[in-house]
Amino acid sequence: MSRKAFQDYYPDNFSHCYGCGKKNEHGHHLKSYWDGDTTVARFTPESYHTGGIPGYAYGGIVASLIDCHGTGSAAAATFKAEGREMGTEPPIRFVTASLKVDYLKPTPLGVELEVRGEILEVKGRKVTLNLSLIANGIVCAKGYMIAVRLPDDTTT
Amino acid sequence: MSRKAFQDYYPDNFSHCYGCGKKNEHGHHLKSYWDGDTTVARFTPESYHTGGIPGYAYGGIVASLIDCHGTGSAAAATFKAEGREMGTEPPIRFVTASLKVDYLKPTPLGVELEVRGEILEVKGRKVTLNLSLIANGIVCAKGYMIAVRLPDDTTT
Repeated sequence: MSRKAFQDYYPDNFSHCYGCGKKNEHGHHLKSYWDGDTTVARFTPESYHTGGIPGYAYGGIVASLIDCHGTGSAAAATFKAEGREMGTEPPIRFVTASLKVDYLKPTPLGVELEVRGEILEVKGRKVTLNLSLIANGIVCAKGYMIAVRLPDDTTT
Repeated sequence: MSRKAFQDYYPDNFSHCYGCGKKNEHGHHLKSYWDGDTTVARFTPESYHTGGIPGYAYGGIVASLIDCHGTGSAAAATFKAEGREMGTEPPIRFVTASLKVDYLKPTPLGVELEVRGEILEVKGRKVTLNLSLIANGIVCAKGYMIAVRLPDDTTT
């Protein structure tokens, strides 16, 4: 099983994202993988990624992790739907059209967070997904994303 | 007119947020103000806050700015609804229950972004708001938030 992440297949000119780009020196470098039919990424925030109350993550990083994992999962799902190996040409990249995050419980810092993606539909240039962010086995946030594929002539 | 921001009134133990806490050394220090009946915050991201494509903001920071401005605006709206000056006791702090962000256009970097909040309802412990993120006069993202007030015994 390859441990190359979805983001490792992004073309260099699409690898600058603060959340998940391998070429962003300041960023989070989130890495997403298949886990059966679902997708997973793991990330441990820094202590300064706190929200108002020390010890818990700020809402923005929760949304960020869900967002980057979602668009990466949308690309991976499209490669799979088209019967293509990831990394084959032309590249497939998605942007977020809409993201809804429900914050169910405070997300603790100091533990590895797990972000999971469930592909709901791959249809035309659109992928819809459910996402969840889990800490210590507890779902702290749920996401719902509509991602839209960029035209091929913008990704090559 | 006071130029003290909503976040300047947060109690010290609630001032650690990476997005808007004055006591977070690493964070964004977002500051929100009234502008008539709406609220406004302005923020210029760094060049490394890029998304996949250099020159445009990553989705996570768009969500982060909307999120922090939203919870700050919810607190300010509640002080106003209760006829209280901001900063009077007990402190009022909100957390995000749900945030939906529609990404309408890519958000350019290198310019000051404006985040605007429109209070829809202050009801019991819940505030609902519309939010928008504007660059160069163009609305790049729209948000809808449900924020919930923390119990007083957690904010004092």
